[in-house]
Amino acid sequence: MIKAVLIGYGNVNSHLLKALANSNKTAVVQLYTRSEIQLPTAFQSIPHTQDLNELKEADVYIVAISDDAILDFSENLPLNNQLVVHTSGGVSIDNLSKKNRRGVFYPLQTFSKDTVVDFKSIPICIEADDPKDEALLQAMGEAVSDRVVKINSDERAKIHVAAVFVNNFVNYLYYIGQDILKQDGIPFDILTPLIQETAHKIEDLSPEKAQTGPAKRNDKKTIEKHQHLLHNETYKEVYALLTKLIQEHHAK
Amino acid sequence: MIKAVLIGYGNVNSHLLKALANSNKTAVVQLYTRSEIQLPTAFQSIPHTQDLNELKEADVYIVAISDDAILDFSENLPLNNQLVVHTSGGVSIDNLSKKNRRGVFYPLQTFSKDTVVDFKSIPICIEADDPKDEALLQAMGEAVSDRVVKINSDERAKIHVAAVFVNNFVNYLYYIGQDILKQDGIPFDILTPLIQETAHKIEDLSPEKAQTGPAKRNDKKTIEKHQHLLHNETYKEVYALLTKLIQEHHAK
Repeated sequence: MIKAVLIGYGNVNSHLLKALANSNKTAVVQLYTRSEIQLPTAFQSIPHTQDLNELKEADVYIVAISDDAILDFSENLPLNNQLVVHTSGGVSIDNLSKKNRRGVFYPLQTFSKDTVVDFKSIPICIEADDPKDEALLQAMGEAVSDRVVKINSDERAKIHVAAVFVNNFVNYLYYIGQDILKQDGIPFDILTPLIQETAHKIEDLSPEKAQTGPAKRNDKKTIEKHQHLLHNETYKEVYALLTKLIQEHHAK
Repeated sequence: MIKAVLIGYGNVNSHLLKALANSNKTAVVQLYTRSEIQLPTAFQSIPHTQDLNELKEADVYIVAISDDAILDFSENLPLNNQLVVHTSGGVSIDNLSKKNRRGVFYPLQTFSKDTVVDFKSIPICIEADDPKDEALLQAMGEAVSDRVVKINSDERAKIHVAAVFVNNFVNYLYYIGQDILKQDGIPFDILTPLIQETAHKIEDLSPEKAQTGPAKRNDKKTIEKHQHLLHNETYKEVYALLTKLIQEHHAK
């Protein structure tokens, strides 16, 4: 049984707490939060503290706080030679204090507190200075997920950039789509099946092979018509840039 | 029973043929193609011609050919005063010859010939000059789909632009994500759960509320780090533009 103390109760740890508490290979022995919180009924038996000096003994301390706060927080953590991990995609393992054994346990997913996610399907990227700690993170990962991958801090930084493109930027393109329709009073959910299919297609097909549309076909008449239809200057700019890149890519 | 003749057997009509043939409210009485084709075994009993002068009588003729070819093709079609519809998002109803009754039957989805799609979930956008023809297209739409919407050519043009953003451009962002990972030998499918969740999130949340990431948070340190990590100049450009737009949008 791997015993974990969870530090912080934001989007990541609220989901991680459920997953770790529900596995028979892991136990959440304590939760620390800075301010008072209300735990879901099912987890109210988990010991909860707001005092860092009262942290219990555990195999791993999981610090899921905002990226900027990790360095200072880990320096001031009243622990020594314990396994302390953060859960951030964009932060190097070196942002953790060396007074403890360091690691990373990064679930590669977008979390909202109220959304239900199937944790089993989420890839967990692990990293540790010490091979024994790495083995423990591997076992903890396998307790909650079907996919655990060793990823060092340089690779994780790249994954984090790629995630910005396929998650944050993609979501903004959804917003643009909605905004274009709004002007004519067309409901956004008419695009939902297309959005889902676009995401599912690349499970079987590479994005390169899945590419369709006027830019891919170099259909200049349609491209011109679309640019004429777009009144928003910034949307025109996005249209022009992405069309140019797709055209150049597929002209090769 | 609505009797349809299908003209062309590309991505749209290959899926439409299945849907219409499998409904008990519609029948495909004939398929026309320019060149010889092999129909799936289940549909080999459907009459097939390569001669436009041998078109059978039907309630509706569904022309699913490339956008550019629609105008000329409909002018030369040896039919008069029949209901002739095209299936294109980007083409106005006025691109059909006036010698026939004109209409549009546009399934709002991305089709690949080999992909299985659940036709019932696909919104069908219909348009017709004549109210009786519109009623027929409505009935034909309802025979194969749970959602049929009256959309005129101006609105459909807007939907088509919006679809380019949420489908073609989104797919290109998937490609960029894959390419960033490729340089470090990280398999693209590590991003698949994130991509699926990003698409599913906006079924419950507006894209505006679903927005996350360094640009939304105006996290300049992470943005700078990412721009430093991107070596490809065009990816830098996409990153800078979309980051700027998200920052401006959420600063309001």
